[in-house]
Amino acid sequence: MQIIDFRMRPPLRGFLNSRIYSAPDNRDRYTRSLGFKPAPSATDQSIDLLLEEMDEAGVSKGVVVGRNTATLGVIENQDIAAIAADYPERFIPVGSVDPTNRRAAVAAIDAAVAMGVKAINLEPGVCSPPLYLDDRRLYPIYAHMEDNKIPVILMGGGGAGPDITYSAPEHIDRMLADFPDLPVIVSHGGWPWVQEILHVAFRRHNLYVSPDMYLPGLPGHAEYVQAANGFLSERFLFATAYPFCPLPAYTKWFLSLPIAEEAMENILSKNALRVLGL
Amino acid sequence: MQIIDFRMRPPLRGFLNSRIYSAPDNRDRYTRSLGFKPAPSATDQSIDLLLEEMDEAGVSKGVVVGRNTATLGVIENQDIAAIAADYPERFIPVGSVDPTNRRAAVAAIDAAVAMGVKAINLEPGVCSPPLYLDDRRLYPIYAHMEDNKIPVILMGGGGAGPDITYSAPEHIDRMLADFPDLPVIVSHGGWPWVQEILHVAFRRHNLYVSPDMYLPGLPGHAEYVQAANGFLSERFLFATAYPFCPLPAYTKWFLSLPIAEEAMENILSKNALRVLGL
Amino acid sequence: MQIIDFRMRPPLRGFLNSRIYSAPDNRDRYTRSLGFKPAPSATDQSIDLLLEEMDEAGVSKGVVVGRNTATLGVIENQDIAAIAADYPERFIPVGSVDPTNRRAAVAAIDAAVAMGVKAINLEPGVCSPPLYLDDRRLYPIYAHMEDNKIPVILMGGGGAGPDITYSAPEHIDRMLADFPDLPVIVSHGGWPWVQEILHVAFRRHNLYVSPDMYLPGLPGHAEYVQAANGFLSERFLFATAYPFCPLPAYTKWFLSLPIAEEAMENILSKNALRVLGL
Repeated sequence: MQIIDFRMRPPLRGFLNSRIYSAPDNRDRYTRSLGFKPAPSATDQSIDLLLEEMDEAGVSKGVVVGRNTATLGVIENQDIAAIAADYPERFIPVGSVDPTNRRAAVAAIDAAVAMGVKAINLEPGVCSPPLYLDDRRLYPIYAHMEDNKIPVILMGGGGAGPDITYSAPEHIDRMLADFPDLPVIVSHGGWPWVQEILHVAFRRHNLYVSPDMYLPGLPGHAEYVQAANGFLSERFLFATAYPFCPLPAYTKWFLSLPIAEEAMENILSKNALRVLGL
Repeated sequence: MQIIDFRMRPPLRGFLNSRIYSAPDNRDRYTRSLGFKPAPSATDQSIDLLLEEMDEAGVSKGVVVGRNTATLGVIENQDIAAIAADYPERFIPVGSVDPTNRRAAVAAIDAAVAMGVKAINLEPGVCSPPLYLDDRRLYPIYAHMEDNKIPVILMGGGGAGPDITYSAPEHIDRMLADFPDLPVIVSHGGWPWVQEILHVAFRRHNLYVSPDMYLPGLPGHAEYVQAANGFLSERFLFATAYPFCPLPAYTKWFLSLPIAEEAMENILSKNALRVLGL
Repeated sequence: MQIIDFRMRPPLRGFLNSRIYSAPDNRDRYTRSLGFKPAPSATDQSIDLLLEEMDEAGVSKGVVVGRNTATLGVIENQDIAAIAADYPERFIPVGSVDPTNRRAAVAAIDAAVAMGVKAINLEPGVCSPPLYLDDRRLYPIYAHMEDNKIPVILMGGGGAGPDITYSAPEHIDRMLADFPDLPVIVSHGGWPWVQEILHVAFRRHNLYVSPDMYLPGLPGHAEYVQAANGFLSERFLFATAYPFCPLPAYTKWFLSLPIAEEAMENILSKNALRVLGL
């Protein structure tokens, strides 16, 4: 069974300067609070170890997700494209833009697509100023992506903004209704608004849900799994949020969940390939 | 054990022109996403098959709920009354009015009661303009119903409005506090705000909860059942939302839930009879 | 294993005039809806019986929590201090102030601390006017407590205000972020916003969670326990909200929960001692 990890930040290029790698204690505290040990590849910042861990976990490819934020740093799209070029068999590139200026954002999206990225990651709640996912200033950008068939990953859970209202379900619910042909992946899965985001997914068929690190042992876990095994089996995405979760342990745990084989195949790879148009 | 289905829309009169029957693919998609097969009576639009399915399920009576909305259509109160007149042993009539004009709504409520309806169904979030359940424009209508001892069914879950805020718990919480003597049944059970609506029901003793179709296999199911078997046993109502759920399969599943016998009797019929004053 | 009950209102002094004892039917209805029988000590208003029940339950000490509200009454700090002076081995005093006037509140806090209280209980949602937990008018008070290392208990669940928005997670989330060095205990545990408050606790390390009476058999119970046994084991607090729950039955039930021994020791006493600086 092929496995694609939908959210990875390998120890390469610009990622090494971001807090994910430059503040390992903070990162490892998250890892341990989820019940995992830090990945050796994360501690050693070693791509060779990471590739070994991918093999051990059975993860054939990882979606490398860029970032362009005020509070969590920037990973340039050039770096994302270069990583995919260096490891074309292992990494799928997803770019990112700062959405606070619509003209610059649209130009940067088009440039990133020209570089080969398969989707765009937006994290409006950690930009300056922070924006809700249904902020009117984002609508020209969403319209451009919908018209040009560019899938969008929205950070809509966890520390998605200055406070918990930035992950509240009404914002993504409204933009999904207003852009029904735009495939939207909610990273961090809308956590902790678990039942609410599952309702949104039940109602809006253009939403894909990927709780990634906000799943193992956390409240809401059972509801996510129930939905993944049921009505959401074609729109749930496997992701580790590496380096926050180590691939072998996370994957082993995920494969033990009570999810039927057909749904599991969808979740591990087919949904990812379909939403990215691969 | 007598069973009363608190939300049914049989294939008769005005229902046949509504989207529930005129757009069967959309309806059947819901049915299947809940793990059921469409009811033959729904597919064939056959009241005779439906009566057979009621017998098979052990459902002696169904509450036939009218509708008066901008986006989900209208079932006239005359049709509801006529259905109950044609099948007095099988159907209990509940009317509906458009709540956007208070004077017309109050007159229509009184006319419906004179026709014999046992309660009024309001769906303010799918009217034009959509109204929250605590919108001040609804308060004269609620006051009239409270003063005249007319129970109200409020659509307060699922697709209750243009976005998820229309089912958010604060709206129904406030109107329940402001009209403490008005019996209120929340159809679609406040889903997906499951724990929140259960808190509201814990605090406001004039609220009855009926998740109907938003129960089988959906996130929150365990919490609803726990409450139904505990503090909410005298205010939980069995309902299939037929034709969305087939009666025999839904009922068989419901009877298998871990609910004690006395609570189950309340939920299947006694609570329904009491709240409707029968 | 030592047990400290973090929320008790013994039948002594001013408590006897409060609704908790003067309206026993209302109180006992809550007790029964949680599946318990009223404590004999509550029914008889007997401190001797209560001390026996504490011994039977294995509860060595109780945190006696004062109150200063518009809608739930007032227990004077003098009474709290006197109870602790009369029973120094059994009760730990926590005072309370009316937070609607900042200057008077700060003076009253300092006076209470001089009397020996170990923390201050604020219940802004049941004051006049009701205040949200992040109301700007509370910020001078929070600042004073943070600067003077005085822990605060905030009523942030259950009937925390006129409607459910007073327990909504965004309010406590914001004040926790703005006062990161102020230890905050949320009484009633943020219920019913269970997953949301657990997210807030995951993100804000100055939050302690004590669902107290909003735990046994209520929706969300499993999620609280999962967190208590996991990432929240050092910030979860055992409390009965006596006289709402009887100590022997509540404690016996709590000890049967699937919580590992080390976490259980933290929850039963170590977290309480640490947050109160004892």
